[in-house]
Amino acid sequence: MRTSRLEAFSDGVLAIIITIMVLELHVPEGARLEDLADSTTGFLTYLLSFVYIGIYWNNHHHMFQLVRRIDGTVLWANLHLLFWLSLFPFSTAWMDETDLARTPLVVYGINLLAAALAYFLLEHAIFRAEGPDGLLRRAIGRDVKGKVSPLIYVVGILTAAVAGWPALVFYTFVAAMWLIPDRRLESYVAEHGLSD
Amino acid sequence: MRTSRLEAFSDGVLAIIITIMVLELHVPEGARLEDLADSTTGFLTYLLSFVYIGIYWNNHHHMFQLVRRIDGTVLWANLHLLFWLSLFPFSTAWMDETDLARTPLVVYGINLLAAALAYFLLEHAIFRAEGPDGLLRRAIGRDVKGKVSPLIYVVGILTAAVAGWPALVFYTFVAAMWLIPDRRLESYVAEHGLSD
Amino acid sequence: MRTSRLEAFSDGVLAIIITIMVLELHVPEGARLEDLADSTTGFLTYLLSFVYIGIYWNNHHHMFQLVRRIDGTVLWANLHLLFWLSLFPFSTAWMDETDLARTPLVVYGINLLAAALAYFLLEHAIFRAEGPDGLLRRAIGRDVKGKVSPLIYVVGILTAAVAGWPALVFYTFVAAMWLIPDRRLESYVAEHGLSD
Amino acid sequence: MRTSRLEAFSDGVLAIIITIMVLELHVPEGARLEDLADSTTGFLTYLLSFVYIGIYWNNHHHMFQLVRRIDGTVLWANLHLLFWLSLFPFSTAWMDETDLARTPLVVYGINLLAAALAYFLLEHAIFRAEGPDGLLRRAIGRDVKGKVSPLIYVVGILTAAVAGWPALVFYTFVAAMWLIPDRRLESYVAEHGLSD
Repeated sequence: MRTSRLEAFSDGVLAIIITIMVLELHVPEGARLEDLADSTTGFLTYLLSFVYIGIYWNNHHHMFQLVRRIDGTVLWANLHLLFWLSLFPFSTAWMDETDLARTPLVVYGINLLAAALAYFLLEHAIFRAEGPDGLLRRAIGRDVKGKVSPLIYVVGILTAAVAGWPALVFYTFVAAMWLIPDRRLESYVAEHGLSD
Repeated sequence: MRTSRLEAFSDGVLAIIITIMVLELHVPEGARLEDLADSTTGFLTYLLSFVYIGIYWNNHHHMFQLVRRIDGTVLWANLHLLFWLSLFPFSTAWMDETDLARTPLVVYGINLLAAALAYFLLEHAIFRAEGPDGLLRRAIGRDVKGKVSPLIYVVGILTAAVAGWPALVFYTFVAAMWLIPDRRLESYVAEHGLSD
Repeated sequence: MRTSRLEAFSDGVLAIIITIMVLELHVPEGARLEDLADSTTGFLTYLLSFVYIGIYWNNHHHMFQLVRRIDGTVLWANLHLLFWLSLFPFSTAWMDETDLARTPLVVYGINLLAAALAYFLLEHAIFRAEGPDGLLRRAIGRDVKGKVSPLIYVVGILTAAVAGWPALVFYTFVAAMWLIPDRRLESYVAEHGLSD
Repeated sequence: MRTSRLEAFSDGVLAIIITIMVLELHVPEGARLEDLADSTTGFLTYLLSFVYIGIYWNNHHHMFQLVRRIDGTVLWANLHLLFWLSLFPFSTAWMDETDLARTPLVVYGINLLAAALAYFLLEHAIFRAEGPDGLLRRAIGRDVKGKVSPLIYVVGILTAAVAGWPALVFYTFVAAMWLIPDRRLESYVAEHGLSD
């Protein structure tokens, strides 16, 4: 089974998620700068979620450059990932509209964590579909960032539960860590002349 | 006529349907876990409809791997299917906002049934376009799941009319039955080396 | 300049237009069948606009199978068409929410007319880009349907201005006329083995 | 790394932005022509933003016809551009709903300026990824329009701050200037037979 249509569908879903979040930004009631300032929290949480979706798109893009074979399990593992990502507009809006209250911050962290686990499951579904000689398996290697991120999310969730907004420090830290694109895969593709 | 643009357009529509449903999830009024709990019904019905759209995308994807020739009738049969699927956000939201009242549950079941019949008509439009030697016709075979599903939907609709929410047991059962990807087509593609 | 990205972008816009219209369908307030009946007008106008967008997608699809060369003017003529089509959700919703009042019916007709003229301009931009030997020019021929439709729209607009809802008879008639896919182009493609 | 998926994702995001803006157009309360007249400002600002997104899509399309190599920096520079463009529905709606008040007009101008700078950064990320012999670098040349536009935006922003709506003259002027497609790139592609 080819990957092109899976990629096109995922691009579509990610493009929609990243764009509809802006629909949740409430247009300010008044026309002054102070009225816009009320949207600052919304703007920053939107930016954070935009960056997260961007990271997932980037990594998804890098990952599938190394995938040659998929099966039905990969299709569903991919939909499972898209499901958690599609909840970002919801959990972002709740966090924003409650002015960063604790429970919504916890829920946002759980959403981040669930997406990370879904990505991990997708990787492993691909490993299985491609067999022991799969390119992705070799390129990913030990995957330190992928293993550290869930731990930081858990710290962030606990912080959200006891202290509230400081959890955003952890959530932002993981995003910053991933903003650096996945050089492992990128260089693996370049070295082996695999870009198709 | 090639299938690539039909597939791209369908991917676009399905990606949008699956993502805009989350816009119907109301952000909770308060910031506590109890406030989120009020969204549980919405979350579960969203999940069910997400899985249904995922199933249709999966089967559509498998089906068109075996299609070589389409005509104008196939284009319209495909749009007809997309029409019924595009009503999922509407019927899901109505079911959710009325806390699973009987009539909305009946209407949701009718929507599921109409989509299943539209899928059946699409298959047959393809059969006709490809002639008696079409790959899809041979791969699909007797199609037990495709014939049993509408019957279960009808049982679900009747259950909705007399008992309300237990209808969801039937609607969920069909989804679970299809979650197992269509191995017939998948294995047919693999055996005959047809994945293009 | 290749046509693939123009086609992909147009597919995206048309897929979104056709799907967001369902967001304008108001979920009924109550849970009974009578409450749903209030949505009947909305449902029928949605169906009509869905069919119109489907017709434009079909004809666009057939048309670009015969196009080999485009230029900047074609890109803008295409965006001009997409602009008028993107107003369909707006004019459909206004018509629906005013229970088919005269002015909204007139405006809907003008929207249909503007889209038809934009399609005509797009065809001629392609003729010019491809020169006198363009395939599309030869395949389209006299284009009776394309010339009759604007006339019927004008009759519909006048009817809307003096009598209101009977205008829908004319608007529906044009849609029905086009539902039959453009056999001219389809058969031209088939005869000349042009499907790329 | 190939450009096809970057182009597909960007097409998706731009298609959504250009279409969801129409969701911000409020359906008139009444059914008379006067009620529609209240939407005139909304309609014109929507048209302006539609044209701007169309310009970005056109130039993006022309640009990537000349791009052969991208890297992770280009992916993020592209997402950065899409971020600013995704705020157009928000800043357009604010400008419209405040009946062209000064601050929203300033913010709209800043949004235009930020998008222009992001486009500039994207160009330079591509220059770096392709090295000194990149086609795009040679085709773009001195880029007078690209350098003049930000200056006009700044004049527009200052005008908005002191005089309000006349700023739209400047914002519209830049759009008009770009409506003429980028003949430099188009002719470069044609002369060198580069359209792939």
